[in-house]
Amino acid sequence: MSIPINSSKAIFPGLITREREPVNLEFAFPTLDGRITPAEQFYVRSHFPIPEIKAEEWRLSIEGEVEHPFILTFEELKQMPARTVMATLECAGNGRSKLVPKAKGLLWEQGAVGNAEWTGVPLHLLLEKAGLKAGVIEIILEGQDEGTISEEPKAPGTIVFAHSLPLDKALQEQVLIAFEMNGEPLTAIHGYPVRAIIPGWYGMASVKWLIKITATATRFHSYWQTLEYAYWKDLYGKPTLVPVTEMQVKAEIARPALQEVVAAGSIYRVTGAAWSGEQVVEQVEISTDDGQSWQPATLLEEPVRYAWQLWEFAWNVPPTPGAYQLRARATDAAGHSQPDTHEDMRRTYMVNFVAPVEVIVK
Amino acid sequence: MSIPINSSKAIFPGLITREREPVNLEFAFPTLDGRITPAEQFYVRSHFPIPEIKAEEWRLSIEGEVEHPFILTFEELKQMPARTVMATLECAGNGRSKLVPKAKGLLWEQGAVGNAEWTGVPLHLLLEKAGLKAGVIEIILEGQDEGTISEEPKAPGTIVFAHSLPLDKALQEQVLIAFEMNGEPLTAIHGYPVRAIIPGWYGMASVKWLIKITATATRFHSYWQTLEYAYWKDLYGKPTLVPVTEMQVKAEIARPALQEVVAAGSIYRVTGAAWSGEQVVEQVEISTDDGQSWQPATLLEEPVRYAWQLWEFAWNVPPTPGAYQLRARATDAAGHSQPDTHEDMRRTYMVNFVAPVEVIVK
Repeated sequence: MSIPINSSKAIFPGLITREREPVNLEFAFPTLDGRITPAEQFYVRSHFPIPEIKAEEWRLSIEGEVEHPFILTFEELKQMPARTVMATLECAGNGRSKLVPKAKGLLWEQGAVGNAEWTGVPLHLLLEKAGLKAGVIEIILEGQDEGTISEEPKAPGTIVFAHSLPLDKALQEQVLIAFEMNGEPLTAIHGYPVRAIIPGWYGMASVKWLIKITATATRFHSYWQTLEYAYWKDLYGKPTLVPVTEMQVKAEIARPALQEVVAAGSIYRVTGAAWSGEQVVEQVEISTDDGQSWQPATLLEEPVRYAWQLWEFAWNVPPTPGAYQLRARATDAAGHSQPDTHEDMRRTYMVNFVAPVEVIVK
Repeated sequence: MSIPINSSKAIFPGLITREREPVNLEFAFPTLDGRITPAEQFYVRSHFPIPEIKAEEWRLSIEGEVEHPFILTFEELKQMPARTVMATLECAGNGRSKLVPKAKGLLWEQGAVGNAEWTGVPLHLLLEKAGLKAGVIEIILEGQDEGTISEEPKAPGTIVFAHSLPLDKALQEQVLIAFEMNGEPLTAIHGYPVRAIIPGWYGMASVKWLIKITATATRFHSYWQTLEYAYWKDLYGKPTLVPVTEMQVKAEIARPALQEVVAAGSIYRVTGAAWSGEQVVEQVEISTDDGQSWQPATLLEEPVRYAWQLWEFAWNVPPTPGAYQLRARATDAAGHSQPDTHEDMRRTYMVNFVAPVEVIVK
């Protein structure tokens, strides 16, 4: 399927540092070189220092509104039925560097996203073993990472990183309590020994260093679902604050990279990836004329729910030197496509507007 | 009942300016001189410029998840069955100036509170007329005041002041759509021509310049119930953000005022008011020895649900000159009393810890 026009070899290896402590690293998206992102190239989002956990000392407590609360060791978890799910995780703030005026928060460009195969025990098996009481509406996932928030509006004292799922999402068979990434044990920065994987949702829900699962009959409006990772939704003409959940449909261009020099009159293989939340991507289109006309790109992968698809497009580079803008946009199976501008209501999250990539034709 | 020892005449008249635009004014609490606070001494909390509304042009729309949405004129509202409720309103940030370190927000001292008689149509009559659909869980009250929030975390674009009530509170017979305060039409700064009165709750719910009532099957997490006027509540050991609602039990000392000079060896009539949310106050106690021992004050009023009670206490002022600290604390019919310190979890709201008033004995 692939058009062998330009090499897509890495133009630089490794990760881009967005913050040193806590460690926040971005995938160099122009190095995209396959459907699966290796662990060492996978973006890292952390809010507090990385906990050091030994697998043999790790325990997972399942508690709250359950009939039979229990505590699980790492060996016990690994003896339960496991499955492997290929899933794309994207940080809810990915693309934030494109916002004008400059947004608060980490200024992710385009690489706070990756796609991997995750192996673990479906969460619903643990919940069934515990026996949910009537009235449970959410499942809280809690990590061992903790710290303080010093910026206003502050959180009270020391808080843990925790996020909740509505019960229907928690019971989806692809939601995993995962211990492997791409067939290998998780690395420390990716949640060793155990993390949650919530396919279809932005990454903040896939809690790393998971140590506690709590069933609750009350909505959990954690710091991470209100003051952070929340956006405005219209309710009768008025904004109401809701947690960020499902990923929005998006296509990103890997090559050419921003300001890449492209040969005038050549045929250039434009490449990238596209993903959505609960839906698969059905179409990726490319515009090389400032968004006036759009042509279909070729999807290079079979659709797999929750996993991105790579795509390519043969660009007939104009003979006239100058700066040109490329755009990509995806449409998913539910008909969702990408907006032209970022809505204020989304605050600095869910950035999926069609952003031009300027390249230099010489 | 009263102990005629010192005059309680106003030591200064009028209101204290906390902010000029939008206008935010505080009652000079040491001037407390009766159970009913006159309109011209009643604290003013506004978030945006005061709307200028003519009663004959005013309309109230009842809409959302109702069988029969309708629009009411001022004359039509006044023809409906009305009732009068005496109710204390306190700003959720009253007492904030006592917090250490200095809180963000308006630094109210002790006078963002007042007690008045409010006349209006019970909200439940309007809701019954409209006919609530099955599934309604909240009633949104919306004012005509609007503007932008420039501080982080911002609200999107121009927002109105709006607040919602859970259905059970909205249906309480004392919840009013009010057009009179102490037997007179509302003044402009108090919501002319029509405001909501939500007895027992902090003042932010008593929406002024009311123009719209919307029944909703979705929780309304407005800016005013999340980024402002919200606090942290424990849920399984983790903080969850909830809206400020019911007033917390509180006694405040009016006289002596802070740093007032009191005659050594005299008998001084300590006075103040005490209130709570859904409960009446049953006891007020005074400490004149840094909180080591407590003696009962005399409640000067019959308990009326939702209205404060004035109280007095005859203090045998010590013969030795120096600085002394007086404390008052109330206990309500549910047994709630006041904490000794302000919990971080409350952010800068619901400040009802027992705060000493230092006076100078000469």
